Amino acid sequence: MAEAEQHRSGCPINLSLEVLGDSWSLVVIRDIMFGNRRHYRQLLGESEEGIASNILSSRLKQLTDHGLVTKEQDPAHKQRQLYSLTEKAIQLVPVLVQLGAWGRKFLPVSPELSIRAKVLEDGGPQLWERFMAELRAVHLGVPAAQDESSVHHELEQAYREVVDAGGDSSG
Amino acid sequence: MAEAEQHRSGCPINLSLEVLGDSWSLVVIRDIMFGNRRHYRQLLGESEEGIASNILSSRLKQLTDHGLVTKEQDPAHKQRQLYSLTEKAIQLVPVLVQLGAWGRKFLPVSPELSIRAKVLEDGGPQLWERFMAELRAVHLGVPAAQDESSVHHELEQAYREVVDAGGDSSG
Repeated sequence: MAEAEQHRSGCPINLSLEVLGDSWSLVVIRDIMFGNRRHYRQLLGESEEGIASNILSSRLKQLTDHGLVTKEQDPAHKQRQLYSLTEKAIQLVPVLVQLGAWGRKFLPVSPELSIRAKVLEDGGPQLWERFMAELRAVHLGVPAAQDESSVHHELEQAYREVVDAGGDSSG
Repeated sequence: MAEAEQHRSGCPINLSLEVLGDSWSLVVIRDIMFGNRRHYRQLLGESEEGIASNILSSRLKQLTDHGLVTKEQDPAHKQRQLYSLTEKAIQLVPVLVQLGAWGRKFLPVSPELSIRAKVLEDGGPQLWERFMAELRAVHLGVPAAQDESSVHHELEQAYREVVDAGGDSSG
């Protein structure tokens, strides 16, 4: 079996962890996905976790090699590279929602950084699908449905409300 | 804020990855959860991924420190330690199901090691709840419902069928 030579096993959980099982890859995807941070400088400078430059570079390269992220010249700023999510990465939304839900339940989360996870969790699979459709419009250029309100906007609004209400700040 | 000193940020996804974000911890939980491997020797000897002894020891210690696994003298074999999942670990079922679903879609999984992921994925949140109730009976001693067929048995049966049908074997 070909993959037996490259992979620890053919178990889908194991294979997913071979790709995603480090403590930074999904954080970088989270920042591109929810923060719409598309440039290296944003991913580095706006990182809540203070990711180091060499780690960010290596993870972006890995994510590109694994087909989760693409890099191209930004049409708006020719000097800059624009990072986009692939369909493979967009379909990580349910994984990230469940990770967020688990974190909210068992770990010392901060209010303002967990409100978006709560909105997505409460919204269920239907909201995740809408959010994934929006990500396809932004990252893959798939035409967006015009008649629906934006999930991204809804998440930002919920975040703003918690911040304005004085949720504690970490970062 | 106290946790700011210990954690990279208070984001629930980040905090979850601080606990689970390595390539072995969820594999060990998977083996206890789906394989019902409760002893060190089983976790080491039956590992599809060939986990090394020192890695298994260190992960079991971390998982215990994080409150995901407990260790006690096995009532049936006084010489042996029995590992059990905590409620915190049992509630990782939806995370593992989504990771498995994603792996099945995008990675080179093997048929016999992915059939259980498929059954859980197809069964949806209702089946996950039943499976978690069973895990609570096995690992936490919570009385089990008598009137339902066992999800664990259902998963094993699906696995056996694929193996008997000649799905390729890895490991």
